[in-house]
Amino acid sequence: MLLKHSLTPAQIFAFTWKVDIMLLLCCTVVYFLDTYWLSAHIAIPVAVSAVLGTAIAFFIGFNNNQAYDRWWEARTIWGGLVNDSRSWARSLLYYANTKDDPELHTFVRHMIYRHLSFVYALKTSLRKLPDEYYTRYLTKEEIDYIQNQQNIPNAILNLQSRDLQQLRHNGAIDGFAFLELNELLVKHCDQMGKSERIKNTVFPPSYVYFTRLFIWFYVIMNTLMMTEAIGAWSILFGWIFGFVFHVTHLNGITLMNPFDYHPLGTPLDSISRTIEINLIELMGDEPIPQPVKTKADGLYIM
Amino acid sequence: MLLKHSLTPAQIFAFTWKVDIMLLLCCTVVYFLDTYWLSAHIAIPVAVSAVLGTAIAFFIGFNNNQAYDRWWEARTIWGGLVNDSRSWARSLLYYANTKDDPELHTFVRHMIYRHLSFVYALKTSLRKLPDEYYTRYLTKEEIDYIQNQQNIPNAILNLQSRDLQQLRHNGAIDGFAFLELNELLVKHCDQMGKSERIKNTVFPPSYVYFTRLFIWFYVIMNTLMMTEAIGAWSILFGWIFGFVFHVTHLNGITLMNPFDYHPLGTPLDSISRTIEINLIELMGDEPIPQPVKTKADGLYIM
Amino acid sequence: MLLKHSLTPAQIFAFTWKVDIMLLLCCTVVYFLDTYWLSAHIAIPVAVSAVLGTAIAFFIGFNNNQAYDRWWEARTIWGGLVNDSRSWARSLLYYANTKDDPELHTFVRHMIYRHLSFVYALKTSLRKLPDEYYTRYLTKEEIDYIQNQQNIPNAILNLQSRDLQQLRHNGAIDGFAFLELNELLVKHCDQMGKSERIKNTVFPPSYVYFTRLFIWFYVIMNTLMMTEAIGAWSILFGWIFGFVFHVTHLNGITLMNPFDYHPLGTPLDSISRTIEINLIELMGDEPIPQPVKTKADGLYIM
Amino acid sequence: MLLKHSLTPAQIFAFTWKVDIMLLLCCTVVYFLDTYWLSAHIAIPVAVSAVLGTAIAFFIGFNNNQAYDRWWEARTIWGGLVNDSRSWARSLLYYANTKDDPELHTFVRHMIYRHLSFVYALKTSLRKLPDEYYTRYLTKEEIDYIQNQQNIPNAILNLQSRDLQQLRHNGAIDGFAFLELNELLVKHCDQMGKSERIKNTVFPPSYVYFTRLFIWFYVIMNTLMMTEAIGAWSILFGWIFGFVFHVTHLNGITLMNPFDYHPLGTPLDSISRTIEINLIELMGDEPIPQPVKTKADGLYIM
Amino acid sequence: MLLKHSLTPAQIFAFTWKVDIMLLLCCTVVYFLDTYWLSAHIAIPVAVSAVLGTAIAFFIGFNNNQAYDRWWEARTIWGGLVNDSRSWARSLLYYANTKDDPELHTFVRHMIYRHLSFVYALKTSLRKLPDEYYTRYLTKEEIDYIQNQQNIPNAILNLQSRDLQQLRHNGAIDGFAFLELNELLVKHCDQMGKSERIKNTVFPPSYVYFTRLFIWFYVIMNTLMMTEAIGAWSILFGWIFGFVFHVTHLNGITLMNPFDYHPLGTPLDSISRTIEINLIELMGDEPIPQPVKTKADGLYIM
Repeated sequence: MLLKHSLTPAQIFAFTWKVDIMLLLCCTVVYFLDTYWLSAHIAIPVAVSAVLGTAIAFFIGFNNNQAYDRWWEARTIWGGLVNDSRSWARSLLYYANTKDDPELHTFVRHMIYRHLSFVYALKTSLRKLPDEYYTRYLTKEEIDYIQNQQNIPNAILNLQSRDLQQLRHNGAIDGFAFLELNELLVKHCDQMGKSERIKNTVFPPSYVYFTRLFIWFYVIMNTLMMTEAIGAWSILFGWIFGFVFHVTHLNGITLMNPFDYHPLGTPLDSISRTIEINLIELMGDEPIPQPVKTKADGLYIM
Repeated sequence: MLLKHSLTPAQIFAFTWKVDIMLLLCCTVVYFLDTYWLSAHIAIPVAVSAVLGTAIAFFIGFNNNQAYDRWWEARTIWGGLVNDSRSWARSLLYYANTKDDPELHTFVRHMIYRHLSFVYALKTSLRKLPDEYYTRYLTKEEIDYIQNQQNIPNAILNLQSRDLQQLRHNGAIDGFAFLELNELLVKHCDQMGKSERIKNTVFPPSYVYFTRLFIWFYVIMNTLMMTEAIGAWSILFGWIFGFVFHVTHLNGITLMNPFDYHPLGTPLDSISRTIEINLIELMGDEPIPQPVKTKADGLYIM
Repeated sequence: MLLKHSLTPAQIFAFTWKVDIMLLLCCTVVYFLDTYWLSAHIAIPVAVSAVLGTAIAFFIGFNNNQAYDRWWEARTIWGGLVNDSRSWARSLLYYANTKDDPELHTFVRHMIYRHLSFVYALKTSLRKLPDEYYTRYLTKEEIDYIQNQQNIPNAILNLQSRDLQQLRHNGAIDGFAFLELNELLVKHCDQMGKSERIKNTVFPPSYVYFTRLFIWFYVIMNTLMMTEAIGAWSILFGWIFGFVFHVTHLNGITLMNPFDYHPLGTPLDSISRTIEINLIELMGDEPIPQPVKTKADGLYIM
Repeated sequence: MLLKHSLTPAQIFAFTWKVDIMLLLCCTVVYFLDTYWLSAHIAIPVAVSAVLGTAIAFFIGFNNNQAYDRWWEARTIWGGLVNDSRSWARSLLYYANTKDDPELHTFVRHMIYRHLSFVYALKTSLRKLPDEYYTRYLTKEEIDYIQNQQNIPNAILNLQSRDLQQLRHNGAIDGFAFLELNELLVKHCDQMGKSERIKNTVFPPSYVYFTRLFIWFYVIMNTLMMTEAIGAWSILFGWIFGFVFHVTHLNGITLMNPFDYHPLGTPLDSISRTIEINLIELMGDEPIPQPVKTKADGLYIM
Repeated sequence: MLLKHSLTPAQIFAFTWKVDIMLLLCCTVVYFLDTYWLSAHIAIPVAVSAVLGTAIAFFIGFNNNQAYDRWWEARTIWGGLVNDSRSWARSLLYYANTKDDPELHTFVRHMIYRHLSFVYALKTSLRKLPDEYYTRYLTKEEIDYIQNQQNIPNAILNLQSRDLQQLRHNGAIDGFAFLELNELLVKHCDQMGKSERIKNTVFPPSYVYFTRLFIWFYVIMNTLMMTEAIGAWSILFGWIFGFVFHVTHLNGITLMNPFDYHPLGTPLDSISRTIEINLIELMGDEPIPQPVKTKADGLYIM
């Protein structure tokens, strides 16, 4: 997640250099083509090309809307996971009757810690980077069991269900507390599945691909048209127009895959750490981990 | 679901060849008509036709928005089915008390496998292709019963309800677990009904039909106008403009029916297999089936 | 619900003849006025009128969006009714313990049939056509009772609640099954009320009325402008432009009242019959009614 | 809620006369200014002002979308109140076991009548008009109690909770019925709060104010531009353009505050009466009140 | 929340002075550059720049839509908190059986007062201003405990859960009341987390930054173009155009962070006080605090 509202020219260039160079090349080529080879032939009415620009602005707007919705939904899912994690820990700690049984108390505390494993394992499976932080809160047997499974966070949830039934069997919780706790487990499962849905569903590539193609059409046509009116200045203005369209399109594309590991993605590191801090603090344990640090001098957080 | 972000020219042509040919024909005919028969008569102000282009871009945008919403809703419904399938299996396995009763244990496991039948039968009924994979997890009697019913996945759900009541009657689950499990059954039923709604509700054909008609109006008018300004080049540019509008419109149309069996549809094969893998792995059975393979050299997955 | 994606010219004309004739008249009058009386005076810059066209396209788009949302919400409500009807029947049949009591069994089956009455009575009250099919599944006394009530489907729901309490009183269901069944009753009540909301809430007529007025403004101004450029051809092109705007506006208006009895409305006949088939089949009764037939040679279904 | 789809010119004038007069004045002044003082100086390119018109059309569209959403949400909230009122009465009447206790029966019936007070008191508090109809269904003590409270409908809800607990204490309802009934109370509370949210949240005045300002900019610039092209006709056409923009903006503004007492607002009188009729009929009491009458010869209903 | 629908010129200037001055400077510089240095070289076709204006209007519209959604979601979350606070107090007061136990009665009343602490602590943590009003309703021990925690409102919720379990342990509430009360606690936790999500998620700065950059591109290009047509008047008109675009963009930006302490933010002071009044009145205590006063002579409320 980007944190700064202003970018330096260097940062803009870092974000856009590929398209900048391609645009300058393209506009220059079109200018020379039109000046030395074509100028006699083509004088498309300006308003005609204006329609193309307007239409493409719509289609870019469409892509951006859907991309933003994916990004915001991803953030909302993980926001929901924060809430349900707090409710899970709070409910387990206070509603399970463990007063006279230290072993049971440890059992319940392990179920809370294991939820942290679930959160970190889900992060690992979404980011697809090697990151085994989640094993920190599991026993050796549990690690062996879940690493044999294809979907690790799901396997952790299964362990939670098994132990919830155990609690009930022991009489530590009654049916009503069981209802509430299981409902939270179902929500964890939903949030896992929803994250996977966003991760695994490719935004229809036809939209992205053809919109990019159409922008290039437009840049060429626009430069053609301006060459006849303003000569070599058309290279500059063609670049500006292309910049506006391409950069807005790129803005959308970078939001489309919010679980990828890039500065504009959902800050899973930071959110997971928030959950970790809240849960460890609730149980009164120490040390409480530090919040995640921002990167690139406060430019973004992962 | 398409997986690749770039298309080769051959793939673009495979997707658009019909409209490409019709556009070239149309623009050529208009050019010759205008040049040899009409040119003296019609000189529509360009800005007038620009309005038409803008208006049509809106209407295309409207269709695309609604189509994308249908496509995303379809994906969301099946994502929900993944989550609820996992919860169903997890809950049945751990909350049904079958410790001292191997027959009951088999009974519960059959209820989990039967859920796989439900998922595959729903897939078959949405795709409307002959596919009896779902019978694999049913007994002979069950197959006979459900194939006499008009709505096969619904008939499977009825069997699940019958057996859930049986579990309760046996004392394997109590009222609280019954609540949670029946709630999941109700959700399966909702997901089935929502999928059928999207499958069976034709997107208002008047929008699709008239938008296509309007695009052709616009292509003709636009080529007319450009012929007077740029002569035979109007065939090329008329084709480009038509391409932009028609292809965007086509993009929307291909998303409108996400349960049809085409590369841009919802990948039901792959989602069903994910559920199958998760459930079989949870029960510790073997062999675990392989994930569905991509097609056309990684271009899409069904 | 329309089923065919292509319309014949005759069908287009049947849908649009009123506006076609009015447009031709209007454009012709404007042409003659401008040619023989006004031409010297008015030469509005074309770009000025283009703004009006663009603005009106927005407002039409706004109306179409809201209309489509009403139409899709109506479909979603009735899709939900399908799902909850299946859950209602499935739950009643399997969760009510009627094994040793044939009278109670009949009582439960009557509650399922009475739900069909609810569905058909709701259809009748939304369509506001004389249709007493719903009486088929009620006793004489029930018919007498409900026909004295102002809201017939609501009265049927009241009977369902009364009998649900009776089941519980008899011990046929316990508190947990009561919870699940009553929740379905509450959902039926919600779906009834949501359908009434869409039926009874008039879409703000100011939008519809003024948008139509603005389109006529635009058609006149546009024809005025084209007359000076292209003479009598302005009648043809004025008609085309008016056609695009008016037809898109009409498309929206026909979706605004999805419960009216017209080919683009929600197919309540077909949905009710689907519910009827599913429920009768579930109970193993005969004869199972036939699905509703399409009309006008497959053009639409009601 | 307006009921008629066509307006007479007199009704249009009644709705728009203020803006009509201001527009005519403005355009006339601009015309004379431009003709006698400015004409030599300003000849803004038409396409430049067209952009302004397009941009303003967007911003008007934005306001209208949000306004419509508020209006529809208001209607949906009160539609939900209708549904939950029916469920409340139905559930109380049938699920409270009052067979052998006429006093308890009266107690339950009073709880249903008191819900009508809640609905009418909520209407009074939203409309902010003196209207004490809600006292009709309360006892003298209850009226004294609630009128000392700042939020009268909320005070009525508190009485309902008190009596619900009483019912449970008496054994007239058990825990399961308590769950269902309390859930309805929570929903009534939500609907009250959601209505207050819409009533009390001022739509960001900056949008409304600046959009109006921008429309006046545009009207002036547009008339300036047309004066040079078409002379005094610019007054007429300037007025038409301003009319289109201002009236669409006004349409939005009138929907923004759906609980105000004006013809386009949510018809709270009519909805409350529907609830009243349904509940009194359910209890078999008499007389059943008449539905609310339309006003202004069928033009609207409050 | 702004309350007044009209702004005085001074208030407009106070809101926009920065951008006003920058626009005047920019347009003046462009005018002089174009007149004395460039005028011979650049005559961009007007329609070309019009496209840029239209495209930017879209992107501004996109930002405004998302910003408004954040603002409205923030208001909806706090509206939900109002509702759930009332339900929490109402349910605790009436459903906890404290008749014969004054100590328990005090205990329950403290749980209601502690909820006010939760609301005020949440306000403090969102506003990030020093404000310890929330300590007013806590005991000394509780203050010590929660101020050692990193997330104070969350720590208060943990206390609520602890005491809810206590109530149940004492037999003051049974399982059904526990379900309802815990569900409200979960909702409070959700509303806290949702508020934090909006507070902590930076709206993608790339949108805000590039849109501002594009507006400046457009202002420059537009002034360039007008200079050639209308000379020094281009400074005035360039300023007007820039004003329209920049102010609309600013409108969106001020809504993006609804929990900041500025006049357009969500009025947390006022909403918290409403909850405080409702709860204290429900318990029959005194004095009831005064509603929050408007500021700046009724211009806004915090």
